[in-house]
Amino acid sequence: MKVQGVVLDAIEQLSIREIDVPWTLQPADNEVKIAVKTVGICGSDVHYYKHGRIGDFVVREPMILGHEAAGVVTQIGKAVTHLRVGDRVCMEPGIPDFGSMQTLQGMYNLDPAVQFWATPPVHGCLTPEVVHPAALTYRLPEQVSLAEGALIEPLAIGVYAAAKARIHPGDVAVVTGAGTIGLMIVFSALAAGCSEVIVSDVATAKLALLAGHREITTVDLTRQDLGEVVRARTDGRGADIFFEASGSAKPYDSMIDLIRQGGRAVLVGMPLDKVPFDVVALQVKEIELTGTFRYANVWDRAIKLVASGKIDLRPLISATYPFDDSIAAFRRAAEHRPEDVKIQIAL
Amino acid sequence: MKVQGVVLDAIEQLSIREIDVPWTLQPADNEVKIAVKTVGICGSDVHYYKHGRIGDFVVREPMILGHEAAGVVTQIGKAVTHLRVGDRVCMEPGIPDFGSMQTLQGMYNLDPAVQFWATPPVHGCLTPEVVHPAALTYRLPEQVSLAEGALIEPLAIGVYAAAKARIHPGDVAVVTGAGTIGLMIVFSALAAGCSEVIVSDVATAKLALLAGHREITTVDLTRQDLGEVVRARTDGRGADIFFEASGSAKPYDSMIDLIRQGGRAVLVGMPLDKVPFDVVALQVKEIELTGTFRYANVWDRAIKLVASGKIDLRPLISATYPFDDSIAAFRRAAEHRPEDVKIQIAL
Amino acid sequence: MKVQGVVLDAIEQLSIREIDVPWTLQPADNEVKIAVKTVGICGSDVHYYKHGRIGDFVVREPMILGHEAAGVVTQIGKAVTHLRVGDRVCMEPGIPDFGSMQTLQGMYNLDPAVQFWATPPVHGCLTPEVVHPAALTYRLPEQVSLAEGALIEPLAIGVYAAAKARIHPGDVAVVTGAGTIGLMIVFSALAAGCSEVIVSDVATAKLALLAGHREITTVDLTRQDLGEVVRARTDGRGADIFFEASGSAKPYDSMIDLIRQGGRAVLVGMPLDKVPFDVVALQVKEIELTGTFRYANVWDRAIKLVASGKIDLRPLISATYPFDDSIAAFRRAAEHRPEDVKIQIAL
Amino acid sequence: MKVQGVVLDAIEQLSIREIDVPWTLQPADNEVKIAVKTVGICGSDVHYYKHGRIGDFVVREPMILGHEAAGVVTQIGKAVTHLRVGDRVCMEPGIPDFGSMQTLQGMYNLDPAVQFWATPPVHGCLTPEVVHPAALTYRLPEQVSLAEGALIEPLAIGVYAAAKARIHPGDVAVVTGAGTIGLMIVFSALAAGCSEVIVSDVATAKLALLAGHREITTVDLTRQDLGEVVRARTDGRGADIFFEASGSAKPYDSMIDLIRQGGRAVLVGMPLDKVPFDVVALQVKEIELTGTFRYANVWDRAIKLVASGKIDLRPLISATYPFDDSIAAFRRAAEHRPEDVKIQIAL
Repeated sequence: MKVQGVVLDAIEQLSIREIDVPWTLQPADNEVKIAVKTVGICGSDVHYYKHGRIGDFVVREPMILGHEAAGVVTQIGKAVTHLRVGDRVCMEPGIPDFGSMQTLQGMYNLDPAVQFWATPPVHGCLTPEVVHPAALTYRLPEQVSLAEGALIEPLAIGVYAAAKARIHPGDVAVVTGAGTIGLMIVFSALAAGCSEVIVSDVATAKLALLAGHREITTVDLTRQDLGEVVRARTDGRGADIFFEASGSAKPYDSMIDLIRQGGRAVLVGMPLDKVPFDVVALQVKEIELTGTFRYANVWDRAIKLVASGKIDLRPLISATYPFDDSIAAFRRAAEHRPEDVKIQIAL
Repeated sequence: MKVQGVVLDAIEQLSIREIDVPWTLQPADNEVKIAVKTVGICGSDVHYYKHGRIGDFVVREPMILGHEAAGVVTQIGKAVTHLRVGDRVCMEPGIPDFGSMQTLQGMYNLDPAVQFWATPPVHGCLTPEVVHPAALTYRLPEQVSLAEGALIEPLAIGVYAAAKARIHPGDVAVVTGAGTIGLMIVFSALAAGCSEVIVSDVATAKLALLAGHREITTVDLTRQDLGEVVRARTDGRGADIFFEASGSAKPYDSMIDLIRQGGRAVLVGMPLDKVPFDVVALQVKEIELTGTFRYANVWDRAIKLVASGKIDLRPLISATYPFDDSIAAFRRAAEHRPEDVKIQIAL
Repeated sequence: MKVQGVVLDAIEQLSIREIDVPWTLQPADNEVKIAVKTVGICGSDVHYYKHGRIGDFVVREPMILGHEAAGVVTQIGKAVTHLRVGDRVCMEPGIPDFGSMQTLQGMYNLDPAVQFWATPPVHGCLTPEVVHPAALTYRLPEQVSLAEGALIEPLAIGVYAAAKARIHPGDVAVVTGAGTIGLMIVFSALAAGCSEVIVSDVATAKLALLAGHREITTVDLTRQDLGEVVRARTDGRGADIFFEASGSAKPYDSMIDLIRQGGRAVLVGMPLDKVPFDVVALQVKEIELTGTFRYANVWDRAIKLVASGKIDLRPLISATYPFDDSIAAFRRAAEHRPEDVKIQIAL
Repeated sequence: MKVQGVVLDAIEQLSIREIDVPWTLQPADNEVKIAVKTVGICGSDVHYYKHGRIGDFVVREPMILGHEAAGVVTQIGKAVTHLRVGDRVCMEPGIPDFGSMQTLQGMYNLDPAVQFWATPPVHGCLTPEVVHPAALTYRLPEQVSLAEGALIEPLAIGVYAAAKARIHPGDVAVVTGAGTIGLMIVFSALAAGCSEVIVSDVATAKLALLAGHREITTVDLTRQDLGEVVRARTDGRGADIFFEASGSAKPYDSMIDLIRQGGRAVLVGMPLDKVPFDVVALQVKEIELTGTFRYANVWDRAIKLVASGKIDLRPLISATYPFDDSIAAFRRAAEHRPEDVKIQIAL
């Protein structure tokens, strides 16, 4: 059928236009139809817009962008029991094969069959209506707005990283990188049990967003040394948890040195190349290291943390554009203004 | 040697007097000497004062009371490196055999050789000076007062219970019982990652202390049903974690029913008798259940959670008496006024 | 359609007859068709045969029995990639809603929508052909026979209990009850890392099956005391793990007493009534307690443990009857001969 | 005082001679005196003998070698309750500060104050008598010989690595490197729950020691490809656990590729230089990686696994020399004969 959508045809060729899509808008028994209301622009959307690819994922056919979405349920399938027409919801954008080994084992995010919005060749959700599995559609409580609902996707990455960190109450964490994901990890780590987060970046404007939080220590790498701050804040012992969220190889130089004995590193940022790694240093401190890939089983948790006020996402919304100005919204996002965190589109 | 102390000679026979003690005030290599500055009165102190015993622990000889203490370091042993004279500190009151199997395995609180302040026949710390192992003496950061420092002991019970609960970010917890320990668990569970805590008691005044926290739901059992509230707050699924902190057998009737599949119960309150337990209900929901005994390895964590502002203990200090009025302080504590949480003595 | 089956019409009214069933034998895309070759008779089959019900599960309509099955794949759905026609397989008998919250979280066994063979009103597999989800159909390596394959179902209960026990290498376990499940737990606990298992029962013939294993200590409760043996074998410290597999309330009297500090109990047997439970004893030893319900994500593990020779199931097959003698097989199983463990039917 | 010992004075200058040591042979309250009976020669002993140093640990003063020891208790301190004169024992060679933070947290092996036998400047135990903390002295059951007792030290490294691997029942493990430690990991991983271990080395003679075990697959790297074998044995999914025990950087090239999604790597071998590491590969499979340093809290477990017959150490003892021939024993060990695993000295 034909739908309206924010369609990427080629590098920097983005338009709101009608496009043929391989679906109908009739929900199956376990699906719901949703009127899309808010969509955030993710770094990956901008990357496809500017470069036409991310690694092996290449935009070869026109593709609707967008995967951070909230909306309102307009129709439900026969077997759906936990949602009703009119519910305000947000949608987890990766759909696994529900019968796969990975799904049965609780790690559906790793199923190679996952269909993820706006990851070529799968269309995204910058279109007025979508049909989605009810199991991956989450009701927003009344105190959570649709704009916040559309921020649950990046927050889920933070909450998942915090869950993987197996935080013990009172842990001190380091987060390297204060981009959107880094910020989400900062908030998630604090909400998940850390007493303090030390966050470093070269982007002074991003760090300024975190000023005034007693439990957050910012490290401006243009003039401060992360190691010195970590040692000062931890009596020289090192942080309990180290979240790498910059994607740079640089933090790896001092990472093990800045983690306490028996501590943990969670690698979220994706460095382009292999990183030289000091195995012996990791061994003598018995540090554990893990990586995360998107998220699984945390969306309801992320929503609850916002609903109860433990995490406040509203300061992260830098600007909201109407759907008809979507191209302007993408241009703004592609500017990477220092003070911008999240640009959203409202339908 | 002879020291001054708040000495319990027999039931309700409490006085500030000189008493012969089996120690000197000369710290060994791994010990420090501390000028005691603040001591909180614990329910167990009051229980010894009123009844002369707790279970098998009977006060047979005159005993100094008190085990919730903060003070200032006045002398350090030769091998002590992490403390200095003048440091404001709080003291973990149970001293294990450091070479025991339990200590080596990280569960020193379970060592049968533990010497615990004010647990007969071991004297407590309501005395001007104590000598204590440096390993169990924790420096207070400048933003934590001595009065708060003397509250780390009961808080540590809460933080330990929260650690045992293995909270996942965004969990919803139930806490039955809003006494001092129940309150400490409420604050700890929230600080440790819960999005929401539902706390129940018949003591309306205690619940009133928790008003105005968006992430706390209070259940006044004199007029509300805990089960109804839990079901309403969790879409009928049950809480992720259930902390029993009332010591009553009553919560066990509905406990398993109010926990979600795969959830956890942490039993902190000590019911007098055996409790009838529905094994099959636990099995079909695969619920885990554990108990806690005091605490291990959480004092520094509790301090950090207070220092960073995640837990505010100040509203729990109901009154502070000078050392010379210690007997009045005990009488007040023994009144169990509904609005009182913690009575402290300042030296 | 109509199929042949071992059909229970009412209490003790069992026959091999044609019966109308609500399915076809045409596999859907993610399903396979299997020629059933071996089916073991489970205690639950016998219980339905003798009593017509298990708790709330009542046989109200004629029902095919059997859920412990192995067979040969005869047809595969279009989307099936890990199985081929001719593969020897065994089948996990509980089919969840693959899109349920429980499935996504890796605990599909707890999905209330599970359809489990021979649990009313769902038919079992004592019929020549079945169609089954490929995701729950496991290929048998060449060194595992179809008869062993039909024993993977009860073994999976043991392996799952062992997994839930979080065994540390060298743990000593107690297993109370040496019925089929008890035996499966004994073998699983040893394969999963225990250095020694102490197994108790009043059934001397069952214990005799375990003679000659240096790592198994049997306790004949008709003449020995479990507590004495456990203390003798653990230097008085208690077992690391306690598996309750008798279904009796009796082991609960001494359970906590026989577990070491920080140890774990896994409750598998289902006592009829509530059991009086000593909460304080559990607390002062910080023991964890959990229950299991069937199994999830362990079938491939159980098969591998048999394939590599770590678990030998062959001595547990007491007799094998041809399909035409199925009624005789059930009569034999219902005799509960002391030396019988598993009666199987071969098609 | 002066004792006899196998003393390393300088590189390759080893002799049995009298040497002045900074201790007496009078046990303190928590210590025992032990007549040393068997001492194994470790690769580190040989390394000091041949090179005079291991990394930063340099033999600057004459040093008694040896740290893998078993013996007989000849005297016990006043506070010792779990040992008696005449007990056959083995001794954990690293003595921590029992009051350190690391010890209290259950990771005493990471205490920087650890005094470890035959690690300069601390003397080893190739001397007729030693005094040792009772807490680190373990009684050998009657079915475990002194020669096996002296092998508990290297076995403990394997058991600890297996514990760190958090093996699930039925896991398939890879072990790269079949030296003494590699072999100990193979046996430990199987005893701890693996269904199968795939072990690779270029040393054909070492692999030959593992022939005839159905649950062990050997990969002779001189003519086989590890990746091919792992894929064939795991249906292409990869191993659940990867133990690196070669100390070479080479296995890191394919490590992540050979581990299944959600699997774990335990790094035991110590590569000389930093290793290039593919962070993104680790992330998209969500693999966990950890290192081990010696061992903590596993000696009693290792002994129990030997006592119950789950691990047979006897084939690993290649030759035993009398104390007077200790120098010959070291020369033999330094030859690194392909078929030799462990050379022991009997006193």
